[in-house]
Amino acid sequence: MLNYTPAPTKDMPLYLGLYHSIREDILSGKLKADAKLPSKRSLAQHMKVSVITVENAYAQLLAEGYIRAEERRGYFVSEGAERPGAAALMKPEPVPEGKTPENCFVDLCSNRPDESRFPFSVWSKILRSELSGPRRRLLAATPAKGAPELRRAIADYLFACRGMSVQSEQIVVGAGAEYLYNLIVQLLGRERIYAVEDPGHVKAAKIYEKNAMPLRYVQVDEKGMRVDTLYESGADTAHISPSHHFPTGVVMPIGRRQEMLAWAEAGKERYIIEDDYDSEFRFAPRPLPTLQSIDISGRVIYTNTFSKSLAPSIRIGYMVLPPKLVERFSRELSFYACTVPSFEQYTLARFIAEGHFERHIGRMKKHYRAERDAVIGAIAESPLAGRAEILEQDAGLHFLLKVKTNKSDETLRREALSAGVRLAFLSEYSHIPVEAEMHQIVVDYSGVDRARLGEAFARLGAIL
Amino acid sequence: MLNYTPAPTKDMPLYLGLYHSIREDILSGKLKADAKLPSKRSLAQHMKVSVITVENAYAQLLAEGYIRAEERRGYFVSEGAERPGAAALMKPEPVPEGKTPENCFVDLCSNRPDESRFPFSVWSKILRSELSGPRRRLLAATPAKGAPELRRAIADYLFACRGMSVQSEQIVVGAGAEYLYNLIVQLLGRERIYAVEDPGHVKAAKIYEKNAMPLRYVQVDEKGMRVDTLYESGADTAHISPSHHFPTGVVMPIGRRQEMLAWAEAGKERYIIEDDYDSEFRFAPRPLPTLQSIDISGRVIYTNTFSKSLAPSIRIGYMVLPPKLVERFSRELSFYACTVPSFEQYTLARFIAEGHFERHIGRMKKHYRAERDAVIGAIAESPLAGRAEILEQDAGLHFLLKVKTNKSDETLRREALSAGVRLAFLSEYSHIPVEAEMHQIVVDYSGVDRARLGEAFARLGAIL
Repeated sequence: MLNYTPAPTKDMPLYLGLYHSIREDILSGKLKADAKLPSKRSLAQHMKVSVITVENAYAQLLAEGYIRAEERRGYFVSEGAERPGAAALMKPEPVPEGKTPENCFVDLCSNRPDESRFPFSVWSKILRSELSGPRRRLLAATPAKGAPELRRAIADYLFACRGMSVQSEQIVVGAGAEYLYNLIVQLLGRERIYAVEDPGHVKAAKIYEKNAMPLRYVQVDEKGMRVDTLYESGADTAHISPSHHFPTGVVMPIGRRQEMLAWAEAGKERYIIEDDYDSEFRFAPRPLPTLQSIDISGRVIYTNTFSKSLAPSIRIGYMVLPPKLVERFSRELSFYACTVPSFEQYTLARFIAEGHFERHIGRMKKHYRAERDAVIGAIAESPLAGRAEILEQDAGLHFLLKVKTNKSDETLRREALSAGVRLAFLSEYSHIPVEAEMHQIVVDYSGVDRARLGEAFARLGAIL
Repeated sequence: MLNYTPAPTKDMPLYLGLYHSIREDILSGKLKADAKLPSKRSLAQHMKVSVITVENAYAQLLAEGYIRAEERRGYFVSEGAERPGAAALMKPEPVPEGKTPENCFVDLCSNRPDESRFPFSVWSKILRSELSGPRRRLLAATPAKGAPELRRAIADYLFACRGMSVQSEQIVVGAGAEYLYNLIVQLLGRERIYAVEDPGHVKAAKIYEKNAMPLRYVQVDEKGMRVDTLYESGADTAHISPSHHFPTGVVMPIGRRQEMLAWAEAGKERYIIEDDYDSEFRFAPRPLPTLQSIDISGRVIYTNTFSKSLAPSIRIGYMVLPPKLVERFSRELSFYACTVPSFEQYTLARFIAEGHFERHIGRMKKHYRAERDAVIGAIAESPLAGRAEILEQDAGLHFLLKVKTNKSDETLRREALSAGVRLAFLSEYSHIPVEAEMHQIVVDYSGVDRARLGEAFARLGAIL
């Protein structure tokens, strides 16, 4: 019998570990071609893991061609799969962000939009109909900034739903927000210092760092990025998420917004990158206008993405440039081909223009609101009630849960994980270490299993 | 009657100019809502342009919603299209590279793969069948390096068709080669000096420049990049296209390849970026192996793209990293989401794995070889015969045509263009100005209209 030790880690679910172990043995030749693998049930019993775990590992090996299935006989190592020397290359890949580790009962920091709610049939229908359209158009590259139809649809959507009056010429479409941040660095030039929120999203900071741009971490208070600290920092470019700060959930009030704009206007080439990620899911009736829409001096670059609002596999983001930068983009960066396939662009354009996107957002808002209420309800009925405070502002897919405990955040995180509940703490998102333990859990409820909430909070209560 | 002056430029076809003029008048309010546009025929007569030109301009305005069509009545300005102040933003966009200006009889530098030959029905069939597959898989993000199925298919293809033995773990998929060059800069770190070919592709150099990397232009001789000059340059990263250099068509012989590898091994962190773009279309029976396949020290990063071999709208490129860099990539750059939509990745994976890609390449090779022979035949039968020499090496979609003339390259280019023949000269691709006029025309025959070749070369002969 094969003997693999199941070792679940923070980064890798059990089945992937098993998959890697078996693959390594196949590549190295330890498992020869045509060798029969143990049945799922017997390997699961032997390893003391669930049959599902083995099933997933086998499915992965099967999909990649390392093993083959024979009906009623079982699984066998494929011929020609052995490649000596390859094992060294075979570092397990980190699980894509947002994947729920399988060994976890409830994941409270999943950051995973609920894919099953994606309007798949409408999307496929449009895609199929686009496939029957003029081939030449589908096969030719779109302009550097993206297909005019898509940019027009986005401009109209922004006008109707975010009250932003922008020309489609100001819009640049690209393969996700991350790609666009890279473009922004090239657009604004290298002589810059970037300010990011602390605590805040790790990715934007990482991207500026990878571009060798000097970074300043500017503290976020209850109104968002502190403008006094921003002035002191010497930065001339500030990346902020005023609609809904991650992970604190802070919504920047209008006074602070005006201060931010005044900061930008006080310097010659200062810019604000407005990250409007997840702003679609604000529950309060009257959302605050975007910074972009009250910016009269052309200092705001607005960015957003469809990867969160539609599906992670749809790698389409966009930015709205102020007029001055539109010209600079045309002059300096339009040599880049647009990174989004034409198919996807035309499909998304029609999806938005025909109103499906707006309807989808409406449905998702309702769904997420119900999920939020379920999570909050489950907390209220759990042993946590009275020992935890919910800090939230009617927005986005996450809120803060402040708990009373003597244990450190790290201890809590570890103990919760062994009880099957994955947690993330606000302190993990801080660059400058915070003195006191804040005990603030960042609850991301976008992919949570409602039926398990009661049990999860009971386990959590027992740990506190 | 509307009065627009047709002004064809190098960058913009006539119809786009007309489109921009009308759009500006609609946005500024000069053309009011519900105003009737002149009929296509009368506007064409009035402007002394073809009806097709007006038709294209109207079609564009229609597609973007600026005008509406009413059956048997004609075209009218849409309501609500007026946006005062917007005109300033409305800089005409540069035409995507490779688009044939409409006012041109024959374009000898089109660089446009023939889209009509794309196996559209097979591609759609796979895409449709993928759409009926498990939704969760289609909607979830793939790993940072790309879908395992696609990387596996590419690895198998490289093995079968390019004799390269690589693990799928070495492959990174991204939204086009341009995107990957940006990733390479981030992967190799900022303390680098890049060497590019002179003459050579403008884009790679531009991308390194936009990343603020110091650049050295290293001369290309009849064997490819000069290694002596490369040593002197102080560069530690060389971007070359040994399979088929653009625009000279040079194929690097094995001796020079070994010298290049020896250069890389002579420094601690030297790397070669092997740009294998268009290598699929080599006509000679035995292609030279790639640099990557004879690199035993892990100094070569191999890059290629499907945008050229399949269709410009398919933004998928890939690179093959040496083992050391595979690990570095996982550690430092796997936080980036893969930039290619999952749909496209799964579709391409099956397209390759089921043999369609190989068959497509085979067909295209045959087609391009016939096109090349037609172009060369047309030259031999034209007044150019005896006054022009063809420099080519049985490869890729372009060759050099050296002509005897007393006129300067620039004069030739201009005179040919007024005769309807668009030309590009080798001298345009040189960074360090060349002393003597070389009179070498870079003939890119990938999108040429065969029926017009005789006439085009006759016109050219008359100019010399």
